[in-house]
Amino acid sequence: MITHAADAALALSLPGSEGLAARLAGELGSGRRLVETRHFPDGEWYVRIGGEVRDNPVVIAATLDRPDEKLLPLLLLARTAYEMGAAEVGLVAPYLPYLRQDRRFRPGEALSAMHFARLLSELVDWVVAVEPHLHRVHSLSDLYDVPACAVPVATYVADWIRGHVERPFIIGPDEESHQWVAPVARAVGAPFGVARKCRVGDVHVDVALPDLSELQGHTPVVLDDIISTGRTLEQIVGKLVHGGFAAPECIAVHGIFAGDAYARILGAGAAAITTCNTIAHPTNAIDVTAPIGGAVRSMLERTAEGWKEDSP
Amino acid sequence: MITHAADAALALSLPGSEGLAARLAGELGSGRRLVETRHFPDGEWYVRIGGEVRDNPVVIAATLDRPDEKLLPLLLLARTAYEMGAAEVGLVAPYLPYLRQDRRFRPGEALSAMHFARLLSELVDWVVAVEPHLHRVHSLSDLYDVPACAVPVATYVADWIRGHVERPFIIGPDEESHQWVAPVARAVGAPFGVARKCRVGDVHVDVALPDLSELQGHTPVVLDDIISTGRTLEQIVGKLVHGGFAAPECIAVHGIFAGDAYARILGAGAAAITTCNTIAHPTNAIDVTAPIGGAVRSMLERTAEGWKEDSP
Repeated sequence: MITHAADAALALSLPGSEGLAARLAGELGSGRRLVETRHFPDGEWYVRIGGEVRDNPVVIAATLDRPDEKLLPLLLLARTAYEMGAAEVGLVAPYLPYLRQDRRFRPGEALSAMHFARLLSELVDWVVAVEPHLHRVHSLSDLYDVPACAVPVATYVADWIRGHVERPFIIGPDEESHQWVAPVARAVGAPFGVARKCRVGDVHVDVALPDLSELQGHTPVVLDDIISTGRTLEQIVGKLVHGGFAAPECIAVHGIFAGDAYARILGAGAAAITTCNTIAHPTNAIDVTAPIGGAVRSMLERTAEGWKEDSP
Repeated sequence: MITHAADAALALSLPGSEGLAARLAGELGSGRRLVETRHFPDGEWYVRIGGEVRDNPVVIAATLDRPDEKLLPLLLLARTAYEMGAAEVGLVAPYLPYLRQDRRFRPGEALSAMHFARLLSELVDWVVAVEPHLHRVHSLSDLYDVPACAVPVATYVADWIRGHVERPFIIGPDEESHQWVAPVARAVGAPFGVARKCRVGDVHVDVALPDLSELQGHTPVVLDDIISTGRTLEQIVGKLVHGGFAAPECIAVHGIFAGDAYARILGAGAAAITTCNTIAHPTNAIDVTAPIGGAVRSMLERTAEGWKEDSP
């Protein structure tokens, strides 16, 4: 049996995840190998691993927002690490996409959640993600053929709220968010509610706030797991401001900020937007490197104990 | 043994290849299924096949310039076609990318040609491409694990030159182009030569023309297989114009036209740019649907005869 200590691991990164790789190497006490990537004018990628990886476990840091431009470099990086003799190759994708379409709502639809997971499962030995936005499947293991760990960060979000917001009350953007707004609110010791969302197409949403009549004098904290177009947040922030509340704090685990989402949410009257550092962005103020590092350690140890072979 | 007649095939397309699918269906006498694709604001793809494909051979038309944005829709489309019971799934990628890096020039480099080919080989039953720009490997079969056919179109290019250019002489952009400029020139019955290219980085090239002193009065035809940045063509055109020749005709099989390549080549003094319809572009004047259709027919027949199983 080969034991893979975390400090024997080598952290590699895709473009956009260099900071994550550096933090992760610090957290694990592991080394790094620089990765050279270039995008040719015709749209092809050049990828090169700078240094030996033979017999070391390799941890690829690659948060997968905007997946189109990351998939091929990730494939080239993972396959090349294997060819160079890496003992194993794991993927740390704090933001893991393609969790939405896990069922056919109309005949002929592609089950992108399954196909994306199958592709990644063919590329790496394990996957670590932060708070994946699961819909009808209950666990990453239902999608991934390799060990896949979902890292919860509610306590880190709660700590940040306690440290930065006086007399908070917490609002989730829709009924689905109840499951994870509730534990954060309990950890903070704050009242909470969820809005009701009526989605009209991909972009337009209508939102109805819950009854907030007893919460005047509190600071609203709008809490979402992902900010993509930010249309929902924008509406909720606007309604809170018009309702006479203090400028709302907006918090999300994953800040994708498609297009001008960031400016629009601030423009609607938000005091500030704060995100976890799962997707590099100036709003990253909640550091979740520690729990990611813990999940990576357990993946490396699980592998060493033959966990993969024994698991169903 | 199941026989797959070409007219039983169903043509599907990725965005950008709808025209190709329509022409191909016409050429083969086959049907089509519309494909619904949407790119969500967060960068994920939605793909849906509109109609049954069960027990039919499916031909996916997907020219693969700018591959980042096409790989995932292609994967979703191919896998969904199989799930819906397609008898087989073939790929018509008139422009096939990732043929450049087939060897490691520095340690740690990703062999992208092999990895890209392996990925496509896992997705489809066969591949048809037009004039792939092979470097050190001699055949697509050295890269692809599934039957892969390279369609030659030199006679179509030669026919176009004969029909449109008086007293042509043909210039290839570099020594490597000799192998395919020579047969075109012979088919046209025109003199030819090749320039010498000294590449400096990805973008900058220096070019030296051959001795053209006996060709004054002829119309220069600059012939390349791929126009990407167009820097080489731009230089050659400029030097020909300054050398007192008539405005050069520029011809390429594949017009990628990265950035402002099209405008720059015309700005250097080209009379016109003409391409084969392998990548949809206003310059497409050389129709190569017929030979592509022929290759697809032979793939469908080969499959029917168990060619795949018997081949090494």
